[in-house]
Amino acid sequence: MSFTTILSFTLYRGRVFLKNAQKHRFKVLGVGIGSSLLGYLNSCKVYAKGRTDLNDLKAGWMAEPLTDINTLDQESDDMKRRMEMMIMRIQGDICRSFERIEGKRKFLVDRWERKEGGGGITCVLQDGEVFEKAGVNISVVYGKLPPAAVQQMKSRGKNLVGTELPFFAAGISSVVHPKNPHVPTVHFNYRYFEVTCEDGSKQWWFGGGTDLTPYYLDTQDVKHFHQTLKTACDKHGQDLYKRYKKWCDEYFYITHRGECRGVGGIFFDDVEEPNQEGAFRFVTSCAESVLPSYAPIVRKHKDDAYTAAERQWQLLRRGRYVEFNLIYDRGTKFGLYTPGARYESILMSLPLTARWEYCHAPEKGSREDELMKILKNPKEWL
Amino acid sequence: MSFTTILSFTLYRGRVFLKNAQKHRFKVLGVGIGSSLLGYLNSCKVYAKGRTDLNDLKAGWMAEPLTDINTLDQESDDMKRRMEMMIMRIQGDICRSFERIEGKRKFLVDRWERKEGGGGITCVLQDGEVFEKAGVNISVVYGKLPPAAVQQMKSRGKNLVGTELPFFAAGISSVVHPKNPHVPTVHFNYRYFEVTCEDGSKQWWFGGGTDLTPYYLDTQDVKHFHQTLKTACDKHGQDLYKRYKKWCDEYFYITHRGECRGVGGIFFDDVEEPNQEGAFRFVTSCAESVLPSYAPIVRKHKDDAYTAAERQWQLLRRGRYVEFNLIYDRGTKFGLYTPGARYESILMSLPLTARWEYCHAPEKGSREDELMKILKNPKEWL
Repeated sequence: MSFTTILSFTLYRGRVFLKNAQKHRFKVLGVGIGSSLLGYLNSCKVYAKGRTDLNDLKAGWMAEPLTDINTLDQESDDMKRRMEMMIMRIQGDICRSFERIEGKRKFLVDRWERKEGGGGITCVLQDGEVFEKAGVNISVVYGKLPPAAVQQMKSRGKNLVGTELPFFAAGISSVVHPKNPHVPTVHFNYRYFEVTCEDGSKQWWFGGGTDLTPYYLDTQDVKHFHQTLKTACDKHGQDLYKRYKKWCDEYFYITHRGECRGVGGIFFDDVEEPNQEGAFRFVTSCAESVLPSYAPIVRKHKDDAYTAAERQWQLLRRGRYVEFNLIYDRGTKFGLYTPGARYESILMSLPLTARWEYCHAPEKGSREDELMKILKNPKEWL
Repeated sequence: MSFTTILSFTLYRGRVFLKNAQKHRFKVLGVGIGSSLLGYLNSCKVYAKGRTDLNDLKAGWMAEPLTDINTLDQESDDMKRRMEMMIMRIQGDICRSFERIEGKRKFLVDRWERKEGGGGITCVLQDGEVFEKAGVNISVVYGKLPPAAVQQMKSRGKNLVGTELPFFAAGISSVVHPKNPHVPTVHFNYRYFEVTCEDGSKQWWFGGGTDLTPYYLDTQDVKHFHQTLKTACDKHGQDLYKRYKKWCDEYFYITHRGECRGVGGIFFDDVEEPNQEGAFRFVTSCAESVLPSYAPIVRKHKDDAYTAAERQWQLLRRGRYVEFNLIYDRGTKFGLYTPGARYESILMSLPLTARWEYCHAPEKGSREDELMKILKNPKEWL
């Protein structure tokens, strides 16, 4: 976290104290702050005892939240704010955990604002010892949905009235490309969407998923990964894992090659069941299952020996990853075609290096061939 | 050229002789050929004097043509056959020329057939001293256009009657990614299209272009490149270069980054002017200008010294090349979404290696920055 960010936190903290102490908003702009004001803020600490829970949470975040902390506090029952708080927490947990695994190198934290409304916090760790490129991004954006986006949602079955509708979206999305070919790539993404129709009615839904892309198959790892996701799903419905595992295999499919991107996981969209509270709890469980599903696999293989040929194979498979993301992935396409989109955060999912060889085919019976067989015929792991 | 290909040529040559000598078709299947038949073929040579022109041409091709050589011969006035002969010649000229520049390594020649009709000849030189990955592909395909393709053509302004129409397409397409960052990448593509409407009427058109993607700017090279294309265009119309140069800058544009893929060249589609003969001659001139526009630049820079940082910059720019091809290029998208498409030939355009760094920005005033300024504001070179 940069010095400026920490200072901003202090100021924000001051604003919360002021609000609670005096019940009026006191606007502190910029970083120039006089000693008299600092003294005044300090004197407010006595009133802040009831706020320790929010301060504790903030200590785990990677940057100051996108939404003003007063609003987060005042509207803490609103799903928009609950989702933002949840993804801030998950981002912090995951980045800190990866930093512990990585050792020295830290995430670069990029907090950006979107002209049209909202912004994001992009955390990137690049060229590490363990992580070749790891991005953990949250965004909280709002504004008017362009007609094309409304049309796309309608074609998915959404009952939206109007052509250019106010929306709110909050989500966390991450792709982790480790250096060692024996450590799989992981991707996850959890999001909440709200659209206000012309008649004032609101539609909301959740979407997301976590999926694994190994370069070499370790059945035990894949089973552990799927089992962790299944356990998270099972708490919320006995058929969820089965349905969303199937959806994942279907979604992460490179049609022109007739192969899956990886060994799957879970994927879902337009989830409104059983109700807003239940759906939020389900998505929270899924987001909380990312670290236990993946971190043990990284720890297990990060120091495995590997050959130059294994590294080449990893880069070739990363080429396939690029193909999927740029040709088929709905989020990437939707993002890049949206005017004003922050392409650097969207394309953070691409690996540091990828390779394309004409007509590459692994040797029959090799470990590379073993992986290809699974990618061409996705199986049940549990 | 593989032994099998050479043998096939011999057999085809025999068939032409037979046809001309005896005016009947003699079908030779497979590679099993008895000595008596070989003797018979040899005895036909005496009749073949009038055919030396076709034999001379064949010697320059990379493989046996997609269309039966009897048909090429009998229908030599048909534009379908003339286009196939032209692209076979250009493919041969370019591959042989690149092999001379490369030194030892030769093009791998892959002749493939398409279940639905036609096929292609893919020539690839990979991991060379000069050429990191060079592909020169021709395809001659026919069949029924899927309704989506007809629709796409209609939306471009084509007056096509029907939903699933017989078509014929012949084209050459090539991307050359050299190893040395001081040698630019080149792409070219020239194609002829024919569609038969439900009422039996035929529509035809030509499309194509050549464009250059340098990693470091050498103004003299870019001027030479554009001047060579302009000279080819000027023979066929004084405004062609200007129009097609502009079209090229507009087409090879990476919208989400707000930058051109390279320094342009020419690009056109749906060309029917001034008539079929004139349009074919124009496209032939363009295809013939590829080697003189590009080969001198390769020779000039192939042995330039370069640093590891320059190589990294080249790989980052190749990442942008991948972005354009997979996200925006009409040919790639159309190809990959077509059932039964040969994706290896379509994706031959991708570099051997590409790189993505989060928020990479060249140092102000550096040579990399100089290139970026041009890519963000395409200029007139002549």
